[in-house]
Amino acid sequence: MSHRSDTLPVPSGQRRGQIPRDHSICTQLLEITLHLQQAMTEHFVQLTSRQGLSLEERRHTEAICEHEALLSRLICRMINLLQSGAASGLELQVPLPSEDSRGDVRYGQRAQLSGQPDPVPQLSDCEAAFVSRDLSHRGIDISVFYQSSFQDYNAYQKDKYHKDKNTLGFINLGTSENKLCMDLMTERLQESDMNCIEDTLLQYPDWRGQPFLREEVARFLTYYCRAPTRLDPENVVVLNGCCSVFSALAMVLCDPGEAFLVPAPFYGGFAFSSRLYAKVQLIPVHLESEGKKVRGFVIINPQNPLGDIYSPDSLMKYLEAKRYNLHVIIDEIYMLSVFDESITFHSVLSMKSLPDRNRTHVIWGTSKDFGISGFRFGALYTHNKEVASAVSAFGYLHSISGIAQHKLCQLLQNTEWIDKVYLPTNCYRLREAHKYITAELKALEIPFHNRSSGLYVWINLKKYLDPCTFEEERLLYCRFLDNKLLLSRGKTYMCKEPGWFRLIFADDLPRLKLAMRRFCDVLQEQKEALIVKQLEDAMRE
Amino acid sequence: MSHRSDTLPVPSGQRRGQIPRDHSICTQLLEITLHLQQAMTEHFVQLTSRQGLSLEERRHTEAICEHEALLSRLICRMINLLQSGAASGLELQVPLPSEDSRGDVRYGQRAQLSGQPDPVPQLSDCEAAFVSRDLSHRGIDISVFYQSSFQDYNAYQKDKYHKDKNTLGFINLGTSENKLCMDLMTERLQESDMNCIEDTLLQYPDWRGQPFLREEVARFLTYYCRAPTRLDPENVVVLNGCCSVFSALAMVLCDPGEAFLVPAPFYGGFAFSSRLYAKVQLIPVHLESEGKKVRGFVIINPQNPLGDIYSPDSLMKYLEAKRYNLHVIIDEIYMLSVFDESITFHSVLSMKSLPDRNRTHVIWGTSKDFGISGFRFGALYTHNKEVASAVSAFGYLHSISGIAQHKLCQLLQNTEWIDKVYLPTNCYRLREAHKYITAELKALEIPFHNRSSGLYVWINLKKYLDPCTFEEERLLYCRFLDNKLLLSRGKTYMCKEPGWFRLIFADDLPRLKLAMRRFCDVLQEQKEALIVKQLEDAMRE
Repeated sequence: MSHRSDTLPVPSGQRRGQIPRDHSICTQLLEITLHLQQAMTEHFVQLTSRQGLSLEERRHTEAICEHEALLSRLICRMINLLQSGAASGLELQVPLPSEDSRGDVRYGQRAQLSGQPDPVPQLSDCEAAFVSRDLSHRGIDISVFYQSSFQDYNAYQKDKYHKDKNTLGFINLGTSENKLCMDLMTERLQESDMNCIEDTLLQYPDWRGQPFLREEVARFLTYYCRAPTRLDPENVVVLNGCCSVFSALAMVLCDPGEAFLVPAPFYGGFAFSSRLYAKVQLIPVHLESEGKKVRGFVIINPQNPLGDIYSPDSLMKYLEAKRYNLHVIIDEIYMLSVFDESITFHSVLSMKSLPDRNRTHVIWGTSKDFGISGFRFGALYTHNKEVASAVSAFGYLHSISGIAQHKLCQLLQNTEWIDKVYLPTNCYRLREAHKYITAELKALEIPFHNRSSGLYVWINLKKYLDPCTFEEERLLYCRFLDNKLLLSRGKTYMCKEPGWFRLIFADDLPRLKLAMRRFCDVLQEQKEALIVKQLEDAMRE
Repeated sequence: MSHRSDTLPVPSGQRRGQIPRDHSICTQLLEITLHLQQAMTEHFVQLTSRQGLSLEERRHTEAICEHEALLSRLICRMINLLQSGAASGLELQVPLPSEDSRGDVRYGQRAQLSGQPDPVPQLSDCEAAFVSRDLSHRGIDISVFYQSSFQDYNAYQKDKYHKDKNTLGFINLGTSENKLCMDLMTERLQESDMNCIEDTLLQYPDWRGQPFLREEVARFLTYYCRAPTRLDPENVVVLNGCCSVFSALAMVLCDPGEAFLVPAPFYGGFAFSSRLYAKVQLIPVHLESEGKKVRGFVIINPQNPLGDIYSPDSLMKYLEAKRYNLHVIIDEIYMLSVFDESITFHSVLSMKSLPDRNRTHVIWGTSKDFGISGFRFGALYTHNKEVASAVSAFGYLHSISGIAQHKLCQLLQNTEWIDKVYLPTNCYRLREAHKYITAELKALEIPFHNRSSGLYVWINLKKYLDPCTFEEERLLYCRFLDNKLLLSRGKTYMCKEPGWFRLIFADDLPRLKLAMRRFCDVLQEQKEALIVKQLEDAMRE
């Protein structure tokens, strides 16, 4: 947490000490600037995208474009400045100009924003960044986007909770990981069939994925998705993670600025993946498409964060997007994490006939169902040879270590162990953890989506927000963070209504219990703060 | 090789049988169309990039742009059509229109281009691709680019030479791999310290690379690059391969359409990597920059394909690009593959002071020096915190399996084994293989660059080309390919002069000997064909 200072005023009811604080100003300003940037972009798109303009109007449009470019450069500089400040843990300062020896206006003096006497570093790094502009425009965008998306995840990586070594570290119920069967997996991965070092594993691979692994993936999906006929290994492309697969699909199915529709709320990682390289927008289906060319739907089944499972009928409705020449990408990454035996999951690959085989693309990986997100494995299954071939190009930049491909193959082909040991144990543990977490939520009278799939519950904390806004949602999120608890907030899932959070329960019980204690503490603090606020409001009236 | 048909006329002197043949027509047409596309793009860039246009001229420019878009769409369709034909192994046919029941013009009849009676498949797949247009414009570009770049590599992957199982398979002296120490590496990777399965290795990583590996990379580079002070792990970013690092750098240092300068001839993989996502052009320094905004230099040291080592003085000249605010990216991936002990390699990281530390970025990986390209590991070392942070964003899509990161760390930290066993053996074997190959080349009176670093020799076969053109170079390349021997041709290194080839010698002696037999056979055939041609020409006159 060395990149965060601790010198700003701490609101009542918040813990002092290791609490990250500059989050509150630098990052907020950054977020606001990002919003400003986005709003401005949308504004200009609207201004300039009108059809059939007269010559006079076109001249005007050109002037607008120039203006846009200028504003955009200025905002980029602001973002750059803020971002380098946030990254280096500098406190925000109001610069007071003073003349240095060269007569330039410098920011050498410090304005005491918070009235605190602590010495703080000078802004020279920020200034350097401001002046040097080493990054390209898109480089700045990417850097800001990454910082704002992963700042808290990176803080967690640097300061993880450990029951002996770091009891005050972060507990992460925000990132979707299944930690319930680490014991089984560790044991399995240490068996003798796992350790194979062959020449072909050490040399450049087939960029589409090693043939032995693609064959195994085809067999595995045939079996577990109950495919009516054997799936073809030539329709499989293997990359280093499902987000890489999604990024590659966004590259080859869309041109820059085009979009996919996604039923919201939905997993934010896809939005990051499709924006990083592909510049493809994900439009939540509760919004209008706003003049973007839509190339397809993205369905996550079981749904993330809701945990809903699509019925064959509702799936079919999406798959009939054929009428509009739309692609349908179905992410089935939680397909084996359905822990209520009375519920049947229907894979798209199990369907006897697809309305538009050539525009139906399935993604699956081992991160969730096998709890090995660190392996970095994702697979695409598509009947469309053109798409498979084009996505293969990305294997050059997204391939998996040969030795890891071997282990994945060994893992997937051991159906006996998967069916008799792993899956029953995993389902049992998911069920028990879900039982524990939902009992806790009921005791706290917190509404939630009661589903039996995935690694998460979708909970509603709007009664702790006053007013019920996304800004208050963010502040509550930061309060959890200050108590070393990571959750995901609804805003990052494009949720319409403020107050929703996603809570991962697939963690071992002692850590989960501690997490819930921190969770309760925050809600208690929040409740007290709300009461104080309401009293103050009442007294003011 | 199932995707290639074998029904076209075989020129005299060429082997029949498993020879890939449709390369000659579909692919040639594809290549020509790609050239056409490129030329057209350049033409339009020139037409529309003029400054200070009048209003009238701007109207004209707009009309040009529309025209460009139309032509571009048409060419994309052509490419799509050709590419789907090439990918599915269809022979080229001249379509004769005929009316089907719906009254449309169809390509149902087959024109016999080659006069052969063999039955060939119908063009329906091509037509479907033509009509369906599943890929986006850039998806088509990527697919075509990938096919034309990796077609032969993919053929090799499907049909590799094996001394017992596949004696007629491809030998690959085109891809830069070091296969000389597979025995040492296999042994080392099977030792007990290599097999560690810990929770953190199985879960989502620090996207910048696991801290233990970044620390080890910093220590390793400090030692082997002779850095004057200890390198900082916070300046290290680890991704899945040096091309991923290069792609990420191109993303964050350049905006689309901008360029890097590279002394030519140079490694083609970087051109592929920077074009795939980043749309950054690599301009060989022997050409003009043609109106592109240049953001930096790329230096490969030891040079690939020449094997030259930059002296500290000549390096310094590039590093002083500071004057022009240019970035310098130095790829030192062959730094430990200098096999003449009398030659000293100078790493940029060994320099006491750099002219522009913040714009100097070093790339290194284990693919070449340790012969484990299948591991997919590349590292960036940069003093520039902004660049390191922005490149880290790409860890989300380019990270390495945790278990592989562990093995890499164990490998790199074993300095004793590296210094006493691996490096001396590797250098000795490189030297011996180089001795063998250069003796063969001398016997054949083939001129070559006699250097003592890297895994390759840069050879001149222009005496086998008549006329000495890039088209003849390509035909000779195809002749090697038809004899199941992969080499790299100068054109793909942006070489100015036709006739140059890069030949990898870091392979075990029996395979190398067989490769040289095939090499000699082709040159013999080529020589005979040239004599026949010259005779025919003489008789015609």
